[in-house]
Amino acid sequence: MQTLSYADGVITMIDQTALPQQEIWLEIDNVADLVGAIKRLSVRGAPAIGVAGAYGIAMAALLHDPSTDSEAFEAAVHDIREARPTAVNLAHTVDRVAPIARTDPAAALAEAHAIRDEELHASIAMGELGADLVLELAQKAQVRTMTICNTGGLATVARGTALAVIQTLHERGVLTEAIPLETRPLLQGGRLTTWELERMGAPFRLIVDSAGPFLLARGAADVVLIGADRIAANGDTANKIGSFSLALAAKHAGVPFIVVAPESTIDMKTDDGDAIEIEDRGPHEVASVRDTPIAPVGTNAINPAFDVTPASLITAIVTDKRIVRVADGETL
Amino acid sequence: MQTLSYADGVITMIDQTALPQQEIWLEIDNVADLVGAIKRLSVRGAPAIGVAGAYGIAMAALLHDPSTDSEAFEAAVHDIREARPTAVNLAHTVDRVAPIARTDPAAALAEAHAIRDEELHASIAMGELGADLVLELAQKAQVRTMTICNTGGLATVARGTALAVIQTLHERGVLTEAIPLETRPLLQGGRLTTWELERMGAPFRLIVDSAGPFLLARGAADVVLIGADRIAANGDTANKIGSFSLALAAKHAGVPFIVVAPESTIDMKTDDGDAIEIEDRGPHEVASVRDTPIAPVGTNAINPAFDVTPASLITAIVTDKRIVRVADGETL
Repeated sequence: MQTLSYADGVITMIDQTALPQQEIWLEIDNVADLVGAIKRLSVRGAPAIGVAGAYGIAMAALLHDPSTDSEAFEAAVHDIREARPTAVNLAHTVDRVAPIARTDPAAALAEAHAIRDEELHASIAMGELGADLVLELAQKAQVRTMTICNTGGLATVARGTALAVIQTLHERGVLTEAIPLETRPLLQGGRLTTWELERMGAPFRLIVDSAGPFLLARGAADVVLIGADRIAANGDTANKIGSFSLALAAKHAGVPFIVVAPESTIDMKTDDGDAIEIEDRGPHEVASVRDTPIAPVGTNAINPAFDVTPASLITAIVTDKRIVRVADGETL
Repeated sequence: MQTLSYADGVITMIDQTALPQQEIWLEIDNVADLVGAIKRLSVRGAPAIGVAGAYGIAMAALLHDPSTDSEAFEAAVHDIREARPTAVNLAHTVDRVAPIARTDPAAALAEAHAIRDEELHASIAMGELGADLVLELAQKAQVRTMTICNTGGLATVARGTALAVIQTLHERGVLTEAIPLETRPLLQGGRLTTWELERMGAPFRLIVDSAGPFLLARGAADVVLIGADRIAANGDTANKIGSFSLALAAKHAGVPFIVVAPESTIDMKTDDGDAIEIEDRGPHEVASVRDTPIAPVGTNAINPAFDVTPASLITAIVTDKRIVRVADGETL
């Protein structure tokens, strides 16, 4: 399943805000609608946003010929690039496709397709490398995997990172069960990962986040697989809040803990986790669930968007190019 | 604040199912309404249910004189005793008050009041012992506390167990901040503990469960305080799911982890945590939040109602009678 595609001037994407209750496919044929979809988080996940932006530039070049209607085209480039200022990937892909569109509008679409293909191939590579490693470390013919947040095709066009490994294990017929954490506050595990697992026909059981560590201690999973927002030079990994807790419990239980992320996630300019600033997303997400209040009006909260798992708790980092066995002393 | 009281044939209790959005006080003057309130979880927490049952017997003796209307009285005793079969405390208090009511109906109320007073005094004692210990272990003049679930007056008539310690610290003017975990799946922390902290005027910030371990690692709290469902002879403690995860993180961070529970919670007939069976409460609570679905229809789940924290991760157990310094080698 491709969650985002382009054909004949139309970007087709699944509306992630409506999942899992409704499966709505958006057909976007103009820049304003694309910018709205990105801002509204109908598309989320750095790689997916990047590909959406690349197709957006190709679409803009079709609607507004850069050589004859330069003003409209450049306004579109600006609007798409700024749709989510914190998404570095979006700026990267826009900056890669826009110069091509200016000299050869028809070539812009080929470049956007190339970006999508790169993402897809990276996901396939991570899935294969990760599945090989999981089977090697688990020393079992059949495995049960635990994961947090959504790291699948919804975040990356197709297959994903940690979830690509789980999908590959499933396709090889060696996945006994996937155990996704619901991932409060935004419930990407409960809403999105479950939906993807169901689509791929993989057996799974959902858990609340705080059940993960105890279930690891009781032997419920053979491996923990997570994605990454950023990996520091020493291997410390920033990822969704709750990852640290799983890593601590995995270490305690002797269960391998594997980070799966593309090479581009590794930031050699950041020495270690202490240098990573933790964004606080404010009290609303904590004091409510999908906009329904669950705490007294005016309740304050601490809401770290992600946490940092020290390299000392990580067994290995799997990228689209290599396996780095951190627990064996290998470095990035 | 007393969350449950009795006067002139009427049991007054706060409806916990409506909190925190609505503060509804139920005035119950007949047995059927009391049984309904217990079944509906309007009153929850073993001590609170026990006191409600004791008052229920006193009320039943007033409505149906055991010496002249024995059949109606015994039916009431049966219905109250069976309102929640798993609540051992309820059977205990009913069995304590009913024989007195049969010989001297007027004395039944005095016995019910005595049970309430015992609970209240136990809470006061736990609060004082716990607060002394927290200040000694933290070696600070002001402390920040982390806790899970609801262990306050709502669960125990007044003050509670772990939350009684936090309240005592607040009353002594040494509480900088309380950090309650929201406590999925049923959100007792987000809904009830926040409400109690607000009522007592204590400063607090709510967090999602999986943020607790990371915030401990980052030094956000000086102590973790939890209640207990059952404490085995070796100190292993069964409590709300998520307690184990906090204990592991507290150990990792060098933060004291304290269990607060009445002596009656200690079960010397259970050798250790391995002998405690973990109830699975089914998928509905996980796949929804307050009955709103958050996962695809039909999603299966693993839903352990509680977990077991091994004694090796516990600094001390505080009861209404004593402090047992488990980390120093003291035993129950």
